Amino acid sequence: MSLNNKIVLSAELKRLLPEGQVMSDPADCWVYGYDNSRKHHLPEAVVFAHTHEDVLSVVRWCNSRQVALTARGRGTGTTGATVPVAGGVVLSLERMNRVLEISADNRFARVEPGLTNQALQDALAPLGFFWPPDPTSAAFCSVGGNLAYNSAGPRAVKYGTPRENTLGLRAVTGDGRDIRVGVFTTKGVVGYDLTRLLIGSEGTLAVITEATLKLTPLAQEKRTLRAVYATVDAAAQAISRIMAQPVTPCALEFMDYNAIEMIRQYSTSDLPQNAGALLMIEVDGASAGLNEAVEQVVQAARVEGCQDVRVARTREEVDALWQTRKALSPALRKVAPGKINEDVVVPVTELPALIVGLNQLSKRFGLRIVNFGHSGNGNIHVNILLDPQQPEQVTRAHECLAEVFALVLALRGTLSGEHGIGLEKRNYIEQELGADVLDLMSAIKRQFDPNNILNPGKLPRGYANSEASTGAPVPPGMGIHTSK
Amino acid sequence: MSLNNKIVLSAELKRLLPEGQVMSDPADCWVYGYDNSRKHHLPEAVVFAHTHEDVLSVVRWCNSRQVALTARGRGTGTTGATVPVAGGVVLSLERMNRVLEISADNRFARVEPGLTNQALQDALAPLGFFWPPDPTSAAFCSVGGNLAYNSAGPRAVKYGTPRENTLGLRAVTGDGRDIRVGVFTTKGVVGYDLTRLLIGSEGTLAVITEATLKLTPLAQEKRTLRAVYATVDAAAQAISRIMAQPVTPCALEFMDYNAIEMIRQYSTSDLPQNAGALLMIEVDGASAGLNEAVEQVVQAARVEGCQDVRVARTREEVDALWQTRKALSPALRKVAPGKINEDVVVPVTELPALIVGLNQLSKRFGLRIVNFGHSGNGNIHVNILLDPQQPEQVTRAHECLAEVFALVLALRGTLSGEHGIGLEKRNYIEQELGADVLDLMSAIKRQFDPNNILNPGKLPRGYANSEASTGAPVPPGMGIHTSK
Repeated sequence: MSLNNKIVLSAELKRLLPEGQVMSDPADCWVYGYDNSRKHHLPEAVVFAHTHEDVLSVVRWCNSRQVALTARGRGTGTTGATVPVAGGVVLSLERMNRVLEISADNRFARVEPGLTNQALQDALAPLGFFWPPDPTSAAFCSVGGNLAYNSAGPRAVKYGTPRENTLGLRAVTGDGRDIRVGVFTTKGVVGYDLTRLLIGSEGTLAVITEATLKLTPLAQEKRTLRAVYATVDAAAQAISRIMAQPVTPCALEFMDYNAIEMIRQYSTSDLPQNAGALLMIEVDGASAGLNEAVEQVVQAARVEGCQDVRVARTREEVDALWQTRKALSPALRKVAPGKINEDVVVPVTELPALIVGLNQLSKRFGLRIVNFGHSGNGNIHVNILLDPQQPEQVTRAHECLAEVFALVLALRGTLSGEHGIGLEKRNYIEQELGADVLDLMSAIKRQFDPNNILNPGKLPRGYANSEASTGAPVPPGMGIHTSK
Repeated sequence: MSLNNKIVLSAELKRLLPEGQVMSDPADCWVYGYDNSRKHHLPEAVVFAHTHEDVLSVVRWCNSRQVALTARGRGTGTTGATVPVAGGVVLSLERMNRVLEISADNRFARVEPGLTNQALQDALAPLGFFWPPDPTSAAFCSVGGNLAYNSAGPRAVKYGTPRENTLGLRAVTGDGRDIRVGVFTTKGVVGYDLTRLLIGSEGTLAVITEATLKLTPLAQEKRTLRAVYATVDAAAQAISRIMAQPVTPCALEFMDYNAIEMIRQYSTSDLPQNAGALLMIEVDGASAGLNEAVEQVVQAARVEGCQDVRVARTREEVDALWQTRKALSPALRKVAPGKINEDVVVPVTELPALIVGLNQLSKRFGLRIVNFGHSGNGNIHVNILLDPQQPEQVTRAHECLAEVFALVLALRGTLSGEHGIGLEKRNYIEQELGADVLDLMSAIKRQFDPNNILNPGKLPRGYANSEASTGAPVPPGMGIHTSK
């Protein structure tokens, strides 16, 4: 965009919105050009919406001028989905952070998209409720972002993802239509399900301005367990047995031996020698009956090859058990300055084949791969460690990644469980979806956003991506890479 | 369609499929022209698919000839959604009734659409699992039909509807594309959610040929309670209090005083005099802790105006409690030969306003209205009683129905919780959705089914419906109207 056009753009936007809601100085706009993928592209302007009407007028203006518009929550995404690769306007929703209504009797909360996940949970807890999606970044990430990527976390194994926990949405489509989709009730089948169509669409169909979320009662109590296994196979056997019995844990987290070894080297954790895999398990429910529920999970976890199962009885013991898990991210950072962090999913019974295959790829490509994640869902964070200063290693890592994805698909898995596609996986989705399904998605995109102004260069594909810049340096302190 | 064209059509279909899979004699086709709405239209041919490939070739043939095709499960729907109002081909999926795969460890079952809901549950129960959707017609209705209308039942209050309990689908779009959507895992966010888009689309976008269903562990034990209230307000207060505490019942069924009075008059049920409303409640879970859970629900149910709460302790006591509910359908049939049975939904806290409003409409239109349903979801079956032989009464009932829908929408409700739109509610959906959302749905319909061959004259709207015949007589024994 020429300097002249840029000046016109920011002048027109400033006429459209109250003072203090438009920034166009590159220094101000800089941080709005990146997300947690470390990719960056500078937008021409950043606009802060305060109301649904603000969103409506900005989207309509961008649509009439064919200016790219990328909606953004808090920028904690890891796939570059909010990086404005086509320039234009970044529409920040961080100031639309109000709780509009909470109804415990109706088990719903109506909120604005910029509300952080944690602020929502804090508002719900005194009423005895919570909203199940719990990304590791809950303290910083926004509900709108959670909806955009269908982001979940450990609790999804029992309580589901945003798609299972959202009743309805208010949104503005790419062509500026002001729509309400879904319902205020826990049942409803009037017409096609556009609510779930928008959830996970990564801001490419519409900008969500309000969400009616389905609430779940908080469990009275929670117990934490740690189980250690001699082999990945033994742990996988335990995961299958746990998932095949009636007590569904509210967390069933896995770590492979590469992860364990790393922790053993870089922390003082009390892990047994020769541990091949580890599970962190949480069981919640009413206090009455919880002992029996925990016992049932412990029995299922005690397969052949189980070296140790510990149940924490106090807050301190819980913290001690989680210390192992928490030691992982700093350890990873010590070992390698960079990593490719994927969030693939396979059916639970395919976890051993996945880990075996990943180890073969690790040897073949000469790259360290560390695996952990939400194993109750079969959702594994595959971390390919690398040094970003060595271009040859980076190339090799990307070759390896293509093989990881092929392996996952061969095991009836999916390329992303909760991080989404963004820029990172855009070139791989046709392998999973096939050309016909991608065509249908592109057709839907054209209906919602005929001028392709919403987050261009992302989902579904087939749109120009000419201005993409994915190698720009990250300013100091901006490249924090939260391990999930 | 001319006789000549009809002969060509059936001859071509017979060439397409093995012997015994095509019927064209009107006497044979007759029963495939109706569903439980009592509406009827004769199709030109009925085709029985045995495989996904059968569906593929029939859809492609119909699409190339622009012949209407209405997919059909078991015809238990109540809205006329499978009545082939444009004639053409009825594609029966009842012979595609195989369980393809059950994996308890992965908590999924892969099944064909013609499998009955009950046959699915029977296959899952020995493994300790079930699929949550439980329409009253479970013994007869098909999984494909459940998916087409997002049909649920009492258990949805705790376990959700098909949209929350389906992982992925195989399907054939109206233009003959062979697609797989969704995943085999409990997480997945690669591209737009076409799985949920197809669920509830009433066979207008694609024909589902296979479904991967999410399984839930069977609870160890279940307890049944009956609570009787002096007023609807008191019962509504109890519903709200039950839904605001942590123990979610697996059924929370409601009956208003018109329903109770009917039962008192036509059965020997032991209901107190002057009962204004009644709740049937079920609580399930692990045996350990279930007493405490039931006690918590009983406490929440005991609001001011509560006349009686009984907890059944034996199988016989459970049956006795349910007798009240079961006496309702025969009583309704004795009182009125016909009825309009709706399945509106309002937020739980709006139930008193809904019931008060319905009683006002009952008086104003001089029609008896009996209300019962799944109150934990706010899903009420509104039964407007009438004599179909009195045209003036039928007209009045439809005028009343329009007011019922306006009332429901004013209370932030939705026109259908589990029966869908079909023919019955097609003229009302714009009131709920608005023109922009309907336009988006029509645009999506055009992408999946450009020649409008799939179930024409139904969702979303704006398609020719010239051949519709909704007043044809129902053959003897075909007009069974199952009360839900």
